[in-house]
Amino acid sequence: MKKKTVVVQGLGFVGAAMALVVASTRDDLYDVIGVDLPSKAAVIGKLNAGEFPVRSSDPKISECFETARKRNNFRATSDQGVYALADVVVVDINLDVRKGVRDEHLDTNYSVTLDPFREAIRSIASVCKQDVLVLVESTVPPGTCKKLVQPVFEEAFRNRNLPFDFKIGHSYERVMPGPGYIDSIRNFYRVYAGIDDKSADAVEAFLKTIISTYEFPLTRLGNTTASEMAKVLENSFRAMNIAFIQEWTEFAEAADVNLFEVIDAIRMRPTHKNIMKPGLGVGGYCLTKDPLLASWSSQHFFGAKKLPQSERAVAINDAMPGHTLGLILQHFREGIAGKKILILGISYLPDVGDTRSTPVEPVFAALQDSKTRLILHDPYVPYWEEQRAKTCSDEEALAGDYDAVILGAAHKSYFQDGLLENILGNNKPLAVFDPHGAIPDAIRAGYPQHAFKITGRGDV
Amino acid sequence: MKKKTVVVQGLGFVGAAMALVVASTRDDLYDVIGVDLPSKAAVIGKLNAGEFPVRSSDPKISECFETARKRNNFRATSDQGVYALADVVVVDINLDVRKGVRDEHLDTNYSVTLDPFREAIRSIASVCKQDVLVLVESTVPPGTCKKLVQPVFEEAFRNRNLPFDFKIGHSYERVMPGPGYIDSIRNFYRVYAGIDDKSADAVEAFLKTIISTYEFPLTRLGNTTASEMAKVLENSFRAMNIAFIQEWTEFAEAADVNLFEVIDAIRMRPTHKNIMKPGLGVGGYCLTKDPLLASWSSQHFFGAKKLPQSERAVAINDAMPGHTLGLILQHFREGIAGKKILILGISYLPDVGDTRSTPVEPVFAALQDSKTRLILHDPYVPYWEEQRAKTCSDEEALAGDYDAVILGAAHKSYFQDGLLENILGNNKPLAVFDPHGAIPDAIRAGYPQHAFKITGRGDV
Repeated sequence: MKKKTVVVQGLGFVGAAMALVVASTRDDLYDVIGVDLPSKAAVIGKLNAGEFPVRSSDPKISECFETARKRNNFRATSDQGVYALADVVVVDINLDVRKGVRDEHLDTNYSVTLDPFREAIRSIASVCKQDVLVLVESTVPPGTCKKLVQPVFEEAFRNRNLPFDFKIGHSYERVMPGPGYIDSIRNFYRVYAGIDDKSADAVEAFLKTIISTYEFPLTRLGNTTASEMAKVLENSFRAMNIAFIQEWTEFAEAADVNLFEVIDAIRMRPTHKNIMKPGLGVGGYCLTKDPLLASWSSQHFFGAKKLPQSERAVAINDAMPGHTLGLILQHFREGIAGKKILILGISYLPDVGDTRSTPVEPVFAALQDSKTRLILHDPYVPYWEEQRAKTCSDEEALAGDYDAVILGAAHKSYFQDGLLENILGNNKPLAVFDPHGAIPDAIRAGYPQHAFKITGRGDV
Repeated sequence: MKKKTVVVQGLGFVGAAMALVVASTRDDLYDVIGVDLPSKAAVIGKLNAGEFPVRSSDPKISECFETARKRNNFRATSDQGVYALADVVVVDINLDVRKGVRDEHLDTNYSVTLDPFREAIRSIASVCKQDVLVLVESTVPPGTCKKLVQPVFEEAFRNRNLPFDFKIGHSYERVMPGPGYIDSIRNFYRVYAGIDDKSADAVEAFLKTIISTYEFPLTRLGNTTASEMAKVLENSFRAMNIAFIQEWTEFAEAADVNLFEVIDAIRMRPTHKNIMKPGLGVGGYCLTKDPLLASWSSQHFFGAKKLPQSERAVAINDAMPGHTLGLILQHFREGIAGKKILILGISYLPDVGDTRSTPVEPVFAALQDSKTRLILHDPYVPYWEEQRAKTCSDEEALAGDYDAVILGAAHKSYFQDGLLENILGNNKPLAVFDPHGAIPDAIRAGYPQHAFKITGRGDV
């Protein structure tokens, strides 16, 4: 049986991993071609050299590469012509939201530009096989498959004098960076839908070859808008619950309450397990924009109302690092210029090296503007690309004489390898800002308690 | 050993049940006196006659009465002098929020009056034993024990020339109406705190005799404000998550999406289990006001900011029944006056007869103003006190010729005893409004699908 050809459009954080997963399915079913723009030549080059373009600690990535190398079934290219070869095109490109300045009411100005996404879909529709399956995995404004992808295909197929035999579906990934990167594609529940039954059946058949659907059954929804909505609702739920806790964080600080112990007590109730804890802020590519995609869709695709709570959640979360920054500035109210401050952890999640929209960024930028002497440390991020800043080694981190330490990301290693304890031991007295409430009691016990400023803890 | 005397202040929904639970602990430890105001003579009379003042299907209530009758250790009174007998006073009185009119920005005008609560505490402090334990179970603005109860006791004890040997604690109940009423006190996790260690120890010792703390361990928090905050945060979390889904309900309707299936798919993720579903609105005594108590406390006890998201959640939930009402008025846009409409279920929760702040109320009131002919049915509510309205029997419900049926409360019995099916069968065609998405597919299958208007389902 001839192998089918799967083209993955977009070789970013999701697409690169998805391409490898498709190339290394248990049975040798697919030839896989990853496509990205000529501007991404470096990524394409890396993938063709067997090197993953995203830093990851997941050992399964090299297993996938090894499988693909043996099968000789994976390559990356910037040649858009390969869509003509595809039986299946998996769309993993970004659809970005551009944010403007927040006004005093915390309303977020933002815009969604569909043009690059539409162009990418057109590049498929203009050359693809008549019966291609297009599986959109991108997070898009709900309604995109029906109101954008399908019309683009219909127009292109009319121009090409082809019958409308294409199939279009949507299924969203729940990829998480970190050590379970590949498994977050292979071994997780998937939601999907098609623009018609034929499309939905084709998506189902394809996903069954990629994902462990026996342990993680697929969920088919009634239409593609529902699948698109599920993705942005998941992330909006999360974003909104984080935003909600921010006002309680400030309340707890004013009322001398340890909000962490309060929330631990509340989580005893199964109906309240998902209540969030205080933190520095929200980062990554999803929670910071998906609620806006939803609100945009409601207004511009369906002529309905905006989603004020969802929009507001993004604005509150974007402003959240300002709260910890305020605690820092308050501590150094006699003057912060010239103070030497160590930031431990710059990624937006613990235990991974992902700095996309990290909430450490606004803190870093403000402290830099205030002429502090900043030292950065992150075992997962040797170089912080967005800020063009190098992080230091453990030895360098230990050598400093600091006025303050900020726990930017609560990497477990900080509490396990003795680094934090040694820094604290070498620097008495200094102020320790822990917006995650993550530093274990055992480490704090050996140090003056008033040194610790923990967000959401008015009691310390 | 002489039995200790426990006085329960307030014999409402919580206090009446708490008094019975304390009187019927496994070991015969306590004499229990329930106290309420002279205006509650009817409740007091009922309790003394062995009759529970709140309608409930829980068989354990009569078991408790039977135990107390055998022990002869329970009585109710309006005599405030009995506080002088108490070793423990459990405070279970209400602390109400008065709501004003919502303005166009959905800001809720509200006021919290502490005076009645302060008076009630004073009535204890002015006569109590020197070493009394006062256990506040009322939901109060966080800070109340430290900023109100303790000062009232200190003032009274100064006037009485007594040393400050009183103990004050806070522990909140999580009482739920329905068949597990008594167990929701006895068999559930409790959070507590004291104004000092001695008070916290006394609360702990008392609760251990009342609650099954082996299966449901107690959680001690750092101070009473934390315990008070935990209660209002629990309910604010819930209120806010219900409010959040309302904007998605409207989005789903506009976008032809079945939000129920979307949410079922999202709930597959453990981190998203607590996402709520569409509904008619929010009722009961807690979620409708507790977020306001929190915001009031932040501003007036601690001079900090209001909690805008929590306040907004109450306003959105209060307005929520207007959405289903809108669907009804939209359906009868040719004129609704004179239409005969059956409301099935008027309580605020399924399977219980609790009409406090039920979201059915604003729908009922608006339809009454619109001169519809309304028939009410609820197997758990023979008489709707707040609206002074009688509900009809099954036979009467079946006999009507209706233009519409509104499922006000999704009591399971409606789907099990054939009543709903028979009403649908007797009345073709009619419109069925199901704001809970609760009517099973099996019942809907036998009936024209366009008859059903399901909140949050644009796809029907």
